Amino acid sequence: MADLDFIRKLVIRADTKIVLLVMDGIGGLPMEEGGLTELEAASTPNLDALAASSTCGLTIPISPGITPGSGPGHLGVFGYDPCRYIIGRGVLEALGIDFDLRPQDIAARGNFCSVDTEGRITDRRAGRIPTEKNVELVGLLREKVKLPGVELFIETVKEHRFVLVLRGKGLAGDLTESDPQQLGVPPLPIRPLEGAPHAEASQTTADLVNQFIAQAQQALADQHPANMVLLRGLDKRPAIPSMSEVFGLRAASIAVYPMYRGLAKLVGMTALPSGSTLADEFDTLEKFWPDYDFFYLHFKYTDSRGEDGDFRGKVAVIEEFDTYVPRALDLQPDVVIVTGDHSTPALLKAHSWHPVPTMLYSRYCRCDEAREYSERACARGALGNLNAVDLMPLALANALRLAKFGA
Amino acid sequence: MADLDFIRKLVIRADTKIVLLVMDGIGGLPMEEGGLTELEAASTPNLDALAASSTCGLTIPISPGITPGSGPGHLGVFGYDPCRYIIGRGVLEALGIDFDLRPQDIAARGNFCSVDTEGRITDRRAGRIPTEKNVELVGLLREKVKLPGVELFIETVKEHRFVLVLRGKGLAGDLTESDPQQLGVPPLPIRPLEGAPHAEASQTTADLVNQFIAQAQQALADQHPANMVLLRGLDKRPAIPSMSEVFGLRAASIAVYPMYRGLAKLVGMTALPSGSTLADEFDTLEKFWPDYDFFYLHFKYTDSRGEDGDFRGKVAVIEEFDTYVPRALDLQPDVVIVTGDHSTPALLKAHSWHPVPTMLYSRYCRCDEAREYSERACARGALGNLNAVDLMPLALANALRLAKFGA
Repeated sequence: MADLDFIRKLVIRADTKIVLLVMDGIGGLPMEEGGLTELEAASTPNLDALAASSTCGLTIPISPGITPGSGPGHLGVFGYDPCRYIIGRGVLEALGIDFDLRPQDIAARGNFCSVDTEGRITDRRAGRIPTEKNVELVGLLREKVKLPGVELFIETVKEHRFVLVLRGKGLAGDLTESDPQQLGVPPLPIRPLEGAPHAEASQTTADLVNQFIAQAQQALADQHPANMVLLRGLDKRPAIPSMSEVFGLRAASIAVYPMYRGLAKLVGMTALPSGSTLADEFDTLEKFWPDYDFFYLHFKYTDSRGEDGDFRGKVAVIEEFDTYVPRALDLQPDVVIVTGDHSTPALLKAHSWHPVPTMLYSRYCRCDEAREYSERACARGALGNLNAVDLMPLALANALRLAKFGA
Repeated sequence: MADLDFIRKLVIRADTKIVLLVMDGIGGLPMEEGGLTELEAASTPNLDALAASSTCGLTIPISPGITPGSGPGHLGVFGYDPCRYIIGRGVLEALGIDFDLRPQDIAARGNFCSVDTEGRITDRRAGRIPTEKNVELVGLLREKVKLPGVELFIETVKEHRFVLVLRGKGLAGDLTESDPQQLGVPPLPIRPLEGAPHAEASQTTADLVNQFIAQAQQALADQHPANMVLLRGLDKRPAIPSMSEVFGLRAASIAVYPMYRGLAKLVGMTALPSGSTLADEFDTLEKFWPDYDFFYLHFKYTDSRGEDGDFRGKVAVIEEFDTYVPRALDLQPDVVIVTGDHSTPALLKAHSWHPVPTMLYSRYCRCDEAREYSERACARGALGNLNAVDLMPLALANALRLAKFGA
């Protein structure tokens, strides 16, 4: 992998446009041995026609055998080494509710949980309380909990989940979690991680978070079943150079779900208002076409149907997506990439480690013999097994946006 | 390559079993241009049937063009970066005779050699003396050579080769060799390597080894032709985390030859008593099936016949191995890998750099279009060209033993 400093020095200006179409969790598996994957079962005339003029391959999101979460999966596709830029769970959760996280904020993923009279955890999710109850408890915490010298944000996510954000000077992440991930024991105190680079600031932050936990316990004492909180993934957002800095691109995201807008904002993309349907997303692409060099368009439902274990449902949403592809092509982008951030086979009902069918079209792509967009066809493509993080340099090259290295 | 610390954090428990079948030196070459390789010429209905439900590829043992010895070849297949964990020649030789090497022992590969009256080497192997003579000379050295404060082991290997082991406190490796690898010059004194991390201990050890050499020369003065010793590859065994620590596996080896048992023990496998034939090895697999999560089964003769330049002989032992494959499959392992530690084409009569035909079967492997286990079919497989060291993470993933990376 060429690192970002290497790429940055080669970037040149060009009047070319790149479209990155991400079908979340697109890669799949046959339900029965010897059968077809979701993508192979789907009728996708437009994607197949594009494959016939593209260079195809399978992208490896992280490294062989590693299943990525949405954060690392997307960072790779955006050209950032997902093992170097680590997104904490708190940050991801904050992005997922469109919270406007600032660079110095400390974010944590919170659970309302149940403890017994001795303070020992009896249910890590408080029986998955309804979201309305969550809203009520968050209101209570906002009213009762006060920390000295920092601004506090407590935000409902869903059911038992909330986000805690501390905003103030001299805070640092690199903290342990309070969730012991088991029952029958009390929550753990928050401490700086061993070898935390800013140990003093991490200690200050840990002290504040422990105060939050103690006050929250008091505020929730009379509640049932949610009478305590657990915190995980306390950290700042990673310091990531923007796509404008490293790739010289005016980049924009088109995504219906907040988390993907958030991930795009982390790498400096402008999050465009994107509506709620695929039609809205492609409308957005057309509307903002003159204004950006790079468009990331995210489609969520391939992943959702995969997570549901709904093979036929995933086939159906792939077919739906296929019908929109011509609208992107009609804009005559210089480079089009179709890929996913990872695989989500309905068979596994979860993200998986399998490489992702990927194709790159440009006037200069050196088209290979793959004639359809599928796992099997891409396995024979000229891109071979490509690290996802190498897609962006390849896109820039095909957009004639990279200068020669060396004389 | 994901490093071991990265993998270790993702490992989860599962009740699944992995079988790793290693045909030593399996990769080959046609004897005549345009002909078939050993594997292609062999009739292997069972391996071919497995290939038809597997994902296939070619594994690169070290990096393109690099021919591995047995040590690095196996370390890679076991999931350990062979360029990071270096096994000295002395250690490998000690493993090869089943010597129970302890972590602090210094092992050296020794040659009996011939020197003239001026002490200049005239034959680096003393005319390859018979092993019986070696045993006699080793007896002489054991009797005459005494070093202060260390326990000394001198062990016959074969012909002119022996192993020297120093056991004691405060010893270190990182030493030069006494064998100048040329004739007409005297053996070199042993010195600490430049930049040796434990320079003082290395100097102490060098002094002791030089005393050994001086005393050995005296003891052998009247012998002919073996009147001196040469030492190479003086080092400790590398500190390698066990497969249990990094992969969470109860791992066992099934191998007829001591060196392969030794390599397996280096990474913390239990070396099962394995008999002396393939039938014995598969008996062992069946007998211990309930007791381990991971079985490494080693077959030596594909390499031996390759080293002999015996194309037909290699074909025959491949066909023999093929008949045993169903016995492994009948145990219903969750993951089966068939590979080699390197190629040994009969044409070259030696290990070679060629990538190794490899297949991985699991319920979740995403079967590709390769329909036989051969160099040509694997070259078209979906695994593509995979670094051997990435096989283990892939096996763990397919055994559902790795958690998602990041949220």
